[in-house]
Amino acid sequence: MRGKDIVSAFDFERSDLFRLFELAEELRKEIDSKGTLDYARGKVMITAFFEPSTRTKISFQFAMTRLGGLVIDFIEEVSSLRKGETEEDTMRILDGYGPDVIIIRHSKPFFPHNVKDFVKAPIISGGDGTNEHPTQALLDVYTIWREFGRVDGLTVGIMGDLKYGRTIPSLSYMLTRFNDITIYYIAPKQLQVREEITKKIEGKLNYYLVENVEEVMEKLDVLYVTRLQKERFEDPQEYERLKGSYVITRNLLEKHRKIPIIMHPLPRVWEITTDVDALPQAKYFEQAQNGMYVRAALLKEVLGV
Amino acid sequence: MRGKDIVSAFDFERSDLFRLFELAEELRKEIDSKGTLDYARGKVMITAFFEPSTRTKISFQFAMTRLGGLVIDFIEEVSSLRKGETEEDTMRILDGYGPDVIIIRHSKPFFPHNVKDFVKAPIISGGDGTNEHPTQALLDVYTIWREFGRVDGLTVGIMGDLKYGRTIPSLSYMLTRFNDITIYYIAPKQLQVREEITKKIEGKLNYYLVENVEEVMEKLDVLYVTRLQKERFEDPQEYERLKGSYVITRNLLEKHRKIPIIMHPLPRVWEITTDVDALPQAKYFEQAQNGMYVRAALLKEVLGV
Amino acid sequence: MRGKDIVSAFDFERSDLFRLFELAEELRKEIDSKGTLDYARGKVMITAFFEPSTRTKISFQFAMTRLGGLVIDFIEEVSSLRKGETEEDTMRILDGYGPDVIIIRHSKPFFPHNVKDFVKAPIISGGDGTNEHPTQALLDVYTIWREFGRVDGLTVGIMGDLKYGRTIPSLSYMLTRFNDITIYYIAPKQLQVREEITKKIEGKLNYYLVENVEEVMEKLDVLYVTRLQKERFEDPQEYERLKGSYVITRNLLEKHRKIPIIMHPLPRVWEITTDVDALPQAKYFEQAQNGMYVRAALLKEVLGV
Repeated sequence: MRGKDIVSAFDFERSDLFRLFELAEELRKEIDSKGTLDYARGKVMITAFFEPSTRTKISFQFAMTRLGGLVIDFIEEVSSLRKGETEEDTMRILDGYGPDVIIIRHSKPFFPHNVKDFVKAPIISGGDGTNEHPTQALLDVYTIWREFGRVDGLTVGIMGDLKYGRTIPSLSYMLTRFNDITIYYIAPKQLQVREEITKKIEGKLNYYLVENVEEVMEKLDVLYVTRLQKERFEDPQEYERLKGSYVITRNLLEKHRKIPIIMHPLPRVWEITTDVDALPQAKYFEQAQNGMYVRAALLKEVLGV
Repeated sequence: MRGKDIVSAFDFERSDLFRLFELAEELRKEIDSKGTLDYARGKVMITAFFEPSTRTKISFQFAMTRLGGLVIDFIEEVSSLRKGETEEDTMRILDGYGPDVIIIRHSKPFFPHNVKDFVKAPIISGGDGTNEHPTQALLDVYTIWREFGRVDGLTVGIMGDLKYGRTIPSLSYMLTRFNDITIYYIAPKQLQVREEITKKIEGKLNYYLVENVEEVMEKLDVLYVTRLQKERFEDPQEYERLKGSYVITRNLLEKHRKIPIIMHPLPRVWEITTDVDALPQAKYFEQAQNGMYVRAALLKEVLGV
Repeated sequence: MRGKDIVSAFDFERSDLFRLFELAEELRKEIDSKGTLDYARGKVMITAFFEPSTRTKISFQFAMTRLGGLVIDFIEEVSSLRKGETEEDTMRILDGYGPDVIIIRHSKPFFPHNVKDFVKAPIISGGDGTNEHPTQALLDVYTIWREFGRVDGLTVGIMGDLKYGRTIPSLSYMLTRFNDITIYYIAPKQLQVREEITKKIEGKLNYYLVENVEEVMEKLDVLYVTRLQKERFEDPQEYERLKGSYVITRNLLEKHRKIPIIMHPLPRVWEITTDVDALPQAKYFEQAQNGMYVRAALLKEVLGV
């Protein structure tokens, strides 16, 4: 994948994914025993985040640092974007400095796609609006692979705001690289997954739209939780009425014979209660940690080091 | 002190302090002659500051950099805290990336205490609300030790807003590690040092509450100045009336037979006039500089390198 | 230039400029072939930007990083300046940590001049209000030198808001170091170059004030474009009336027998249309890129490495 732009989950072939997961395991061992490594010595990564982020940016910075590389952080809020410069010009300028890789996040869908052709450095999307977040899917599927030793044949529930969340399309697309996958999309009707997303997975995996998590709980190997956001509802009363059905509590989980592993892209607010954290099935913090190792693997591949 | 969490000035034993001060002197010589050293090669420090700071953060970053280590800066204002993530979750995530040490500042008292048990990396508090600022005390006492060659037996005046300032408790607690110390707390009645603080030093040193700096000036070896803040006063006229008595000017100092060394945690606004800067007793900029060396010593000890 | 403060374009002698340009060419070759170099190993640069900037700060950070040096970024907005600390004190504190060089940007004219005498580290101005931006001039003139193989004898048009732009004085001053230079200052009367600037170049080069770019276009080797800013006009209608005459379009350029090279300090907003970008004469993105190399050259000289 040397020099390759990563702007969609579809940019990863099935073989790429297995190679990255195995490389992530190796880097985990090396980093945990030796600390900072030497692979990316002298390589420079720019993080160009045009909207806020904790985990994605810091996770990439950590990954690059542990590979032995260097990080330069472009911070939009203290920049001349205030003066009205177009962001395409900003990308041209940053690229002109000769970075070895650029991580981009932007609130506009397809911003990374729009700039990748004139930007010489390899680009990795750190999320583009409601469109995609391919490296989030990478760490999600890596986490599933680590838990089950495989991805083929699993059943995944994806719950919450499926209409606007950018992790949902990327996770769905990446799961098409595996065999015999079933997805249950669990959401109130007005926040169900968009047709433009299901069109792209049609025929590549089985999926069902459901409204209630309890009716499918015992079928799930994985329950991937995201948040309902109040501002998405036209009628605030509707939000208050529905909210309760989209909260995962320890009590709810323990009512069922089988508890799936619980994942979340984080930050979580109220949609998983903190009493769930202690369950062995709660994987969301491990998932964030996995992100650092698998991003290190991706950087190593893209840098060709 | 390898792997130890530092959340209070009481986390330093008397013997720790002397060892750190001597180590700071050695590192000062090494850094001043060689520049960047090699002790912390490959080690990663995260600065997680949930409220603004100039000196503390930059001073730690400089210290770690001069030790040869790496710095990753978590900036709250461009983070998903805006999305409502709890700060405990943020700490779990940062810790999951495997940093070698985390420096935390937070506006909530006891935030570092609350997270230290589930955070695996050693934590050093960079200040928690009105509670404590243990490494500020470390550089304060290091500055006193450098000036006098000892701390035992000295008389220290602490002036200004003693009720809310977080440097006051830490400095007071750290001074209990020495013998035969006298503190004069110099403040208007409504801003005098809190009883919960004096309770902890009771019987371990001598202290007196006074309102006027001039009445004790000639007894002082050290005058530690902090700022009165207007917003602390219910009655703004009261502030205007009192303010003048808590300004240190060159003229005021030179009226006395003996001028103590003048210290300040900085930033200073109007409470020490700039004509004092040229006096040999003005130690506040040196004090800030000492902070970098003694924090380097602390990092070296906590990292065990 | 080891240890020298750079606060004005006049701080560069003619011989300094040629040496820096040639060094920039050498570093360009070395960086492009080897990536990160080793010259500044262990040296620490602080960027102290008291107002926002993209290109200047990132460009210096990149330059220092590619020289093998270390960067510490002081960010004003998350600092104790909010508490009212004077910026002179901030500079004293930063300097006390012992950086090898400090890059300062400030909205107050002459801020770098005011602090350079008490700051021990060499200071490089990254722009001071409406006064100067000496390293911008350095990359501007380096770009001209690269294009023509010389600077002597050239004719330069400088267009836009010449009254307030800080790149205008620095570029003008730097051009006085060359022989037989002609400058056309192209601006509406109320935004023409200030007399305090032309006084300093009087007798050292030829200059003319004109209002219309078209009348001088064919005489120009270089057209340096800056933006008219609406807020500079007392009468908004005046702005709307004039604006159109200060836009460079492809159509306008191709009407003339000779097209000068087009430069811009960036960010550009509407004053050069994007159809100009594809012309071989459009040099503004290259100019930004040149900035990184020539700043690396300057850092290498000032650090004496």
